[in-house]
Amino acid sequence: MKHHVADRMRGISSFYVMELLQRAKELERQGRDIVHMEIGEPDFATPPLVLEAGNRFLSKGEVKYTAAAGLPELRSAVAEYYRTQYGVSLDPRRVFITPGASGAFLLAFAASLNPGERVLMADPCYPCNDNFVRLFDAGTHFVPVGADTAYQLNAELIRRHWRPGCKGALIASPSNPTGTLVCAADLQAAVAAVSALGGCFYSDEIYHGLVYGDPAASALQFSDQVFVINSFSKFFGMTGWRVGWLVVPEDFVDAVEKLAQNIFIATPTHSQYAALASFDPENMAELNRRRDEFAARRDFLYDSLLRLGFKIACKPHGAFYIYADCSAFCDDSFEFAKSLLETEGVAVTPGKDFGAHRANYHIRFAYTASIDRMAAALTRLERFICR
Amino acid sequence: MKHHVADRMRGISSFYVMELLQRAKELERQGRDIVHMEIGEPDFATPPLVLEAGNRFLSKGEVKYTAAAGLPELRSAVAEYYRTQYGVSLDPRRVFITPGASGAFLLAFAASLNPGERVLMADPCYPCNDNFVRLFDAGTHFVPVGADTAYQLNAELIRRHWRPGCKGALIASPSNPTGTLVCAADLQAAVAAVSALGGCFYSDEIYHGLVYGDPAASALQFSDQVFVINSFSKFFGMTGWRVGWLVVPEDFVDAVEKLAQNIFIATPTHSQYAALASFDPENMAELNRRRDEFAARRDFLYDSLLRLGFKIACKPHGAFYIYADCSAFCDDSFEFAKSLLETEGVAVTPGKDFGAHRANYHIRFAYTASIDRMAAALTRLERFICR
Ligand SMILES: Cc1ncc(COP(=O)(O)O)c(C=O)c1O
Ligand SMILES: Cc1ncc(COP(=O)(O)O)c(C=O)c1O
Repeated sequence: MKHHVADRMRGISSFYVMELLQRAKELERQGRDIVHMEIGEPDFATPPLVLEAGNRFLSKGEVKYTAAAGLPELRSAVAEYYRTQYGVSLDPRRVFITPGASGAFLLAFAASLNPGERVLMADPCYPCNDNFVRLFDAGTHFVPVGADTAYQLNAELIRRHWRPGCKGALIASPSNPTGTLVCAADLQAAVAAVSALGGCFYSDEIYHGLVYGDPAASALQFSDQVFVINSFSKFFGMTGWRVGWLVVPEDFVDAVEKLAQNIFIATPTHSQYAALASFDPENMAELNRRRDEFAARRDFLYDSLLRLGFKIACKPHGAFYIYADCSAFCDDSFEFAKSLLETEGVAVTPGKDFGAHRANYHIRFAYTASIDRMAAALTRLERFICR
Repeated sequence: MKHHVADRMRGISSFYVMELLQRAKELERQGRDIVHMEIGEPDFATPPLVLEAGNRFLSKGEVKYTAAAGLPELRSAVAEYYRTQYGVSLDPRRVFITPGASGAFLLAFAASLNPGERVLMADPCYPCNDNFVRLFDAGTHFVPVGADTAYQLNAELIRRHWRPGCKGALIASPSNPTGTLVCAADLQAAVAAVSALGGCFYSDEIYHGLVYGDPAASALQFSDQVFVINSFSKFFGMTGWRVGWLVVPEDFVDAVEKLAQNIFIATPTHSQYAALASFDPENMAELNRRRDEFAARRDFLYDSLLRLGFKIACKPHGAFYIYADCSAFCDDSFEFAKSLLETEGVAVTPGKDFGAHRANYHIRFAYTASIDRMAAALTRLERFICR
């Protein structure tokens, strides 16, 4: 019955890191100690105030569907967050609560992409992006990026790569896998460039808050015609709760509302009530302490990798990733990663999960492990590359 | 910027009942008492054991992403449920835990439908079905059904309506909005007919368990080449938790796994741990008590509606809906519903939310309110139709 699988599935790939993850688990079952530096998920537990809010809500037992667009009070709280964080005033009607940023991508692309249309994205980037676009039989036009543009698209690249059939451009700042940011002026110019071309601008801001220096700018500061994808997963530490949000241009409100009704019914209710506690000042203080811990880890890992001979062309200022050039040690980073896992029990993500451009010379290290654990990993890594 | 909205959105509609729901809320804010018989959601709270399991899991605070396909223990528990309930042996690898049946539909259709292909469905049926199909630029071939086939597709209708470009057929038994079942023999014949035509069979079994008579048969009893969509929302009473499942043919396991990784990352973790308690015998006993309460409501509502002059051509044996012919009172059931809400404060769902076939002569009553509340509604309804 192979012929039943839809054609789009041929283009949708799973992640190479899954193979490593599975092997890592096997090794752990055999009693091996594995340091996980492949995981794109904070190692912290759910923040205490959020957990309490979740428990308080559950104690009532009434876990019914919410409105498709989300709890009105959560939509308002998100809108208010844009006012305090970015000085942007935002009608809560434009805010949709979704099952993670993943749900936000689903809505944004379903509402805006026709089959055959293309979206410009940086290579390397978050691998699900391209697969979301393929879900709707649209495609990605990958733009190879390097350290000269901080591994990001910019206005000039967008104009140069724009072709008939292009529908928009996606920027994630800070980026997964590179942790690099687009500065406010460049983001503004990119938004303007896409607008001048008549396209949609998709801004993945899921790593906002996890920034080690000046805070990141939101695309909403420069236009109300953008799609902004965000989530309670990363900075807010709520991965498994599956709650995020999407901000849409006014003209998309009705379409996205219909879609949300049909494809989600609603986002998990208890997760939405828990997320409401995220904006409490006491919780924000806790999240900022965690951010400072990530900053310390970033410094530690960055210095250590450089010392070992990895090249990091662009110091990352956000997210929890370092995208390191390992060309001094190998010309196939996937083989490198597999061998590192087998011999030393350190799990990392191969570049080819994020694109094709010089992917074989890159490894993504996630600093979602403590400095102690990373120190152990780095000792092993040193032994591995000096073997 | 209207031109940005994707073409598929033109065909995706929101629900007429939303207008009624909004008006009902307005009236409630004004102090009016509204009886809600429009809501497709059990009025019971989350079952106590499930709630406890959820709370127990949350107390640890570690709400991380699970594997994309779901918790292995929950997949196994679902597989085991097929053994005990239906005598079907099922490899847990074929079970995917999803954000509700909604998530299951998303995976099943994304993995199997190409743009332009069509799926046969009964008219009337659950309105999201057609919109899910449209999401992937495929279409629905609606087959008008009536009391002669218990408002269901059968093998003969499937063969008669099959056209080039048809990719499969969808049956929901018990059905929303009619509450009617397909008997085991007819389901087997329908599965065989679709298989002979080389198509995919999609079986929406979300109302299994809520059956007032002989239990419903699962399509998995007749073939391992079917897609079975199910959920913890209805019988298990977990709507707002957003957890359900999809069973796929072996040949789809890899494709669906890739999709789940990309579009969901995972189903809410706390919801999956809570759902694990669903299969506990003590919980099943509680759910069966609730089912008996629904059966009593069904009898009460059925008898009352007939007494008032509604026609119910086919006594419903499942779900929590009665699809009543109101042609004795009106020829536009949407207007009837709006007027009933305004004058008497009773909310019901108009037939046209479920299709086009004689939709203007039908109303869906949900017995998701207590018998006392329904008695009040019926007094008002009687006054309304005798006015
Ligand atoms: C860049 C980026 N965008 C979106 C997501 C989706 O996250 P979630 O659906 O948990 O919000 C991720 C998760 O790793 C990510 O790295
Ligand atoms: C027939 C049918 N299928 C699927 C669903 C989706 O439910 P959920 O996503 O909550 O599991 C519903 C909800 O009303 C339904 O009536």
